[in-house]
Amino acid sequence: METRRIGVLGGGQLGRMLLEAGHRLNLDIVFLDPSATSPAKQLSHRTQDHITGSFGDPACIAALAAKVDVLTVEIEHVDTDQLSKMSTTEAAKMDIFPSAATIKLIQDKYEQKRHFQSHGIPLARFLPVEPSSATSSITQAIQQLGLPLMLKSRTMAYDGKGNYLLKSDAPAEIAKAIEALGKGQRPLYAEGFAPFVCEIAVMVVRGRDGKIASYPAVETIHRDSICHLVICPLRKGNRSTRERARQIAEQAVGTFGDGAVGIFGVEMFLMPSGEILVNEIAPRPHNSGHYTIEACLTSQYENHLRAILGYPLGSTEMKVGSAVMLNLLGSSNSMEEISSVVRASLHVDGATTHLYGKADCRPGRKMGHITVVGESDAQVQDRLLPLLAALPASYTQSPSTAYPLVIRPGLSHPLPMVGIIMGSDSDLPVMSKAAEILENFKVPFELTVRSAHRTADLMNTYAIEAQSRGLKVIIAGAGGAAHLPGMVASHTPLPVIGVPIKASVLDGVDSLYSIVQMPRGIPVATVGINNATNAALLAIRILGDTVSDYRQAMIDYQVSLEQEVEAKIESLDTMGWKAYMSK
Amino acid sequence: METRRIGVLGGGQLGRMLLEAGHRLNLDIVFLDPSATSPAKQLSHRTQDHITGSFGDPACIAALAAKVDVLTVEIEHVDTDQLSKMSTTEAAKMDIFPSAATIKLIQDKYEQKRHFQSHGIPLARFLPVEPSSATSSITQAIQQLGLPLMLKSRTMAYDGKGNYLLKSDAPAEIAKAIEALGKGQRPLYAEGFAPFVCEIAVMVVRGRDGKIASYPAVETIHRDSICHLVICPLRKGNRSTRERARQIAEQAVGTFGDGAVGIFGVEMFLMPSGEILVNEIAPRPHNSGHYTIEACLTSQYENHLRAILGYPLGSTEMKVGSAVMLNLLGSSNSMEEISSVVRASLHVDGATTHLYGKADCRPGRKMGHITVVGESDAQVQDRLLPLLAALPASYTQSPSTAYPLVIRPGLSHPLPMVGIIMGSDSDLPVMSKAAEILENFKVPFELTVRSAHRTADLMNTYAIEAQSRGLKVIIAGAGGAAHLPGMVASHTPLPVIGVPIKASVLDGVDSLYSIVQMPRGIPVATVGINNATNAALLAIRILGDTVSDYRQAMIDYQVSLEQEVEAKIESLDTMGWKAYMSK
Repeated sequence: METRRIGVLGGGQLGRMLLEAGHRLNLDIVFLDPSATSPAKQLSHRTQDHITGSFGDPACIAALAAKVDVLTVEIEHVDTDQLSKMSTTEAAKMDIFPSAATIKLIQDKYEQKRHFQSHGIPLARFLPVEPSSATSSITQAIQQLGLPLMLKSRTMAYDGKGNYLLKSDAPAEIAKAIEALGKGQRPLYAEGFAPFVCEIAVMVVRGRDGKIASYPAVETIHRDSICHLVICPLRKGNRSTRERARQIAEQAVGTFGDGAVGIFGVEMFLMPSGEILVNEIAPRPHNSGHYTIEACLTSQYENHLRAILGYPLGSTEMKVGSAVMLNLLGSSNSMEEISSVVRASLHVDGATTHLYGKADCRPGRKMGHITVVGESDAQVQDRLLPLLAALPASYTQSPSTAYPLVIRPGLSHPLPMVGIIMGSDSDLPVMSKAAEILENFKVPFELTVRSAHRTADLMNTYAIEAQSRGLKVIIAGAGGAAHLPGMVASHTPLPVIGVPIKASVLDGVDSLYSIVQMPRGIPVATVGINNATNAALLAIRILGDTVSDYRQAMIDYQVSLEQEVEAKIESLDTMGWKAYMSK
Repeated sequence: METRRIGVLGGGQLGRMLLEAGHRLNLDIVFLDPSATSPAKQLSHRTQDHITGSFGDPACIAALAAKVDVLTVEIEHVDTDQLSKMSTTEAAKMDIFPSAATIKLIQDKYEQKRHFQSHGIPLARFLPVEPSSATSSITQAIQQLGLPLMLKSRTMAYDGKGNYLLKSDAPAEIAKAIEALGKGQRPLYAEGFAPFVCEIAVMVVRGRDGKIASYPAVETIHRDSICHLVICPLRKGNRSTRERARQIAEQAVGTFGDGAVGIFGVEMFLMPSGEILVNEIAPRPHNSGHYTIEACLTSQYENHLRAILGYPLGSTEMKVGSAVMLNLLGSSNSMEEISSVVRASLHVDGATTHLYGKADCRPGRKMGHITVVGESDAQVQDRLLPLLAALPASYTQSPSTAYPLVIRPGLSHPLPMVGIIMGSDSDLPVMSKAAEILENFKVPFELTVRSAHRTADLMNTYAIEAQSRGLKVIIAGAGGAAHLPGMVASHTPLPVIGVPIKASVLDGVDSLYSIVQMPRGIPVATVGINNATNAALLAIRILGDTVSDYRQAMIDYQVSLEQEVEAKIESLDTMGWKAYMSK
């Protein structure tokens, strides 16, 4: 069908997953990679069509180009001069995406930053380091950007390699840093240390027609500067964070203009102020986008192929509620450590393991990854725990403090699906019934007080942030002039269940009317007076469409109600009503 | 990691998708297939490890067996005698799954039926046809099973090949049938024609430890006896149909005992009585299970590999709300007809195209398939329509009447997410407001009357069947002693929204109390008196967790409410209140 042949510079795991997507569309893809049996090449019977050689070697690139119609990369450390030459002299017969100029700009992190700076993309402050006077350059940078200072290699840096965190301005320390970063042979630059809340990433895809789309923002958790976990969707920040991250990522990719065709990984920092800073960009499929294979309607790999071929872009929407990706990194030369996590993954619902076909395991080497999907953040974290537990001891000795989140019995769940709020702690005896039901049905929930009248701002914030925090339903209980459920419903698109609480007068009818008689436009799902039990059961019915286990649990519960009454009928029939009444 | 090598008899598209799943687990899989570049072989660089030859050739099978540790099949038309010999004489070194005996039993459809009959599996009635006296045998079968009569080849039959529908007992017609079915050279049997409601299928996987799991029941729609569409989940039948189909399918696979290891496709008929009859079984991945790649937590392919390797089985649960698979069948020798559907698929959100790498297109040849996933049946059907429209004219000239379902504006949607019911048509002026809102938000819904007191049985059935019909929310309006919402809530695990309708006395307070004051255990989400608008808005909030578009639409709607009032404030400020009141 598609007659154009695609050539890829690099044939590692990214190429492998690219090829998987390509096979589905019968695309003819060949790879240039130093290994004849690289991860990507293993997946194709056209063994003689690939090229064995370096993507940094102009001759090899030319040889690949001679065989194909469209060139792309799965690694950015390629010879862009050669690419550039081919795109000008052989433009008529060859498309190169992303463009040589874009890749070249990205290769030099300092030039990348300057480029973004000139386009108004938010960045951490940075300064050049003069190669001829590195020490004084660095000293000046410390004066301007403070300590600690990130010293970074401008080129050939990845997975934390080429980064050095300088904590002192002592000349000996500076010398040590320079020594560590290539002994002054490699160009450096300095960056102000960004004390981020978390690292985030967005995959952006741009088509040949200039159309741009982005995947959901994710949180990335690194260990020893290598991506360890990717959590999707991002929950940190506030309700605008995810959307802002996507906008900034799309803007950043947009700065490359028509050279930006294909998929780009945009790594960012979320700062305590809420500000989002771009850290760096990868002009290719990215580790933080592996989750899209199982979790999104179109994977990053398929979308890269669509983009470079000029096809319409596929939907970047998630098709599952929540996803986590765990990298399988070599921790020694033994494959057994990887195998034990893979074995654990076979017992985990929703876990899909990807091994990359690399023969030799080495510390820090990316051997594979596991994506876990599920219906909620809490379910995905539950599913991830046995995988984390199966990691080598080196992981558990220095666990990431950021994940998993700690669940403490009796306290609010850190990844709640339901929020129970009440106007006053005096409502707790009533509202605790909702908590009991949710606990019985194993629904993760939080419970707190928000008063419409005494903590109006807190209440508003709670309602406004509820959806982006991952809540699916809010149960709000209030008595008297019961404003809480209605006011919360005004500030969220989530379903709000109102529990009218019987106050000291009027038998709760005041609360009921206050909650149920909402104006057209803003509904509150009202249950009976003091009937927090039913509020929780309603929440579970609502969640049942998302979480099939809850739907089944509700069916079972309804059967149990029936059996309970049947047992009473049986007693009544056998004991007689007089004995029954006196029992 | 896994040191055992797997050999597969057959290397077509099923083998190809099996290998895709195998790659992810670094499994070493080699194929025996007559073509050196068969669909499966294309996906592996180990070109010299495969065997080119027939899976019906004992020598080729032996050659494959010599190279591997575990043997399996992706086609059932293999030499089972050779397999059987190897499994007895070489048992110590080779596992064959499913067992040679199981495959052999399945190869002869008559023996398969006799086997199922002896195990009490429900079947259409069938009779043997004596090869030596075929004509009189068939005449007798017509007398016992009636007309039309299905005549079937016992062996080597697939995709309708080897089936003949005999409509007359005239000797000339019988002779024609015998001629068509191999001229008396192939063994036949006769089957009573099953006037089914629809054909259904369930993929069943059984592990080496005897553990069994099944995928959701699907509807399969055939054209010219070849699978055209697979619809998941099955909506036909009643609420017990899907579960019964799974049970029968698991039972049927269970009859093979320990020989049944791996994945099995169980094709069944759903009869007008609700009865489910097993039609036939395939001892391998199956066309009706392709959808599992995108729609389920573990694909049929991965689960087959897990089963034959003795790994734990993966979850068979769906991870999307709804899915449809469209087969891409050659309709001529031109690939262009396939290409035009593929091009259309690139514009469809949630569509994943699988092409099988077959060089030559031929009428009826399986060239690929497209799976479309989505959040609801209605959304998936919407997404499928442009693909159906892109099919060759031969399809549109004889469209399947079964699918797609026809949507008629102003009438109930055939694939509703919300059911609006009311106690009486006199409630329509109030309840129509809910319909208007749902229409505005493009939510598929149905609207009808169910009276708790006058049509109690109809109401119960409605409530009982609601979930399996695909409804997500029920909105019930009633006045006076308003029992409808509560009674419906008793019979369904779905969230039920109650609209108290103001009757002639008591201002609707009677309706409100009747609906909201439900006993503990059965909640009704009650909205304000006559406020059907809010009932619909609440339904949309509830659906927002499943359908992200509805969540966004609700956010937009809330903003529009704000802007509406802001405009009024503006008018009031500029006109003054007197002019405002008189405008």
